[in-house]
Amino acid sequence: MTKDEIKALVRTVPDFPAKGILFRDVTTLIRHGEGFAACIAHLAQLAEAAGADAIAGMEARGFIFGAAVAAQMRLGFVPVRKPGKLPVRTVGIDYALEYGRDRLEIDPGAITNGARVVIVDDLIATGGTALAATELLRGAGARVDHALFVIDLPDLHGAERLRSAGVTVEALMDFPGH
Amino acid sequence: MTKDEIKALVRTVPDFPAKGILFRDVTTLIRHGEGFAACIAHLAQLAEAAGADAIAGMEARGFIFGAAVAAQMRLGFVPVRKPGKLPVRTVGIDYALEYGRDRLEIDPGAITNGARVVIVDDLIATGGTALAATELLRGAGARVDHALFVIDLPDLHGAERLRSAGVTVEALMDFPGH
Repeated sequence: MTKDEIKALVRTVPDFPAKGILFRDVTTLIRHGEGFAACIAHLAQLAEAAGADAIAGMEARGFIFGAAVAAQMRLGFVPVRKPGKLPVRTVGIDYALEYGRDRLEIDPGAITNGARVVIVDDLIATGGTALAATELLRGAGARVDHALFVIDLPDLHGAERLRSAGVTVEALMDFPGH
Repeated sequence: MTKDEIKALVRTVPDFPAKGILFRDVTTLIRHGEGFAACIAHLAQLAEAAGADAIAGMEARGFIFGAAVAAQMRLGFVPVRKPGKLPVRTVGIDYALEYGRDRLEIDPGAITNGARVVIVDDLIATGGTALAATELLRGAGARVDHALFVIDLPDLHGAERLRSAGVTVEALMDFPGH
């Protein structure tokens, strides 16, 4: 299945979560067996080329793509979680959203010092969440120099922000004009 | 890797989320490349034997296992989500937790009428969440007769509750006495 065929499986929902926003919904891709498997195969190929030692994904949609990539590559998966979910002493990072703030947490024991951890998520918009995850993982000792996404919304400049932080960004598709 | 070797990768954390509870933590299994891949292979074998047409998993840890099983089997994955996450008109179910209530939602368009949907989650305790997911998926037209878990806590009788609802329960390991 080509990237264009995978792209055709993404559903666009107008006015979600707020009026005027075109929401690019991956759930229609995920529920398509061949489409989802092809998507994971493409991402795993990119993660392999990036020299991944482990895969990290952000709660919750990043779990869907990241864990499947990790299992296919026989690599460990590091869940980057919302606050209060992990049962151990965590390290965390607060970061700004368009409205308000959020926080990500990891178990620092999940990171082998110097391991190359590749971030996988469904979509990059402004890049705030991915940048926070990058800083959090680096602070715990990981090398983070690649982040992979199913969808890039290039007009929101998230990939540029990540590149400025030394992270190479690759996406299977983009939606200019979002 | 045997099921006993996989079991040895689960970490037990005392007094989380409340005093007196032994929390069985799968994150130490997930971050172990060979262990996680073996776990997904075992679950995929069970889902194959169950005749799965699609895999469903509950937010958020169920996404980690369910999506990886689906991708390996080249089947679609149906995310069973917390309220307000899906960008379309959903169907939902409210259900009781030990303290309070919770709600699960799916996109009814994710279910092909009569398709056999196998539920995958990390752990079954009282079975409340899995039972709610079963009812929700059945209400949307799915056949749900198998639910697969990494861990069963048999003293909490969740598997019995699911069996009473016509769902065969299989788990890779159990922790009697939890």
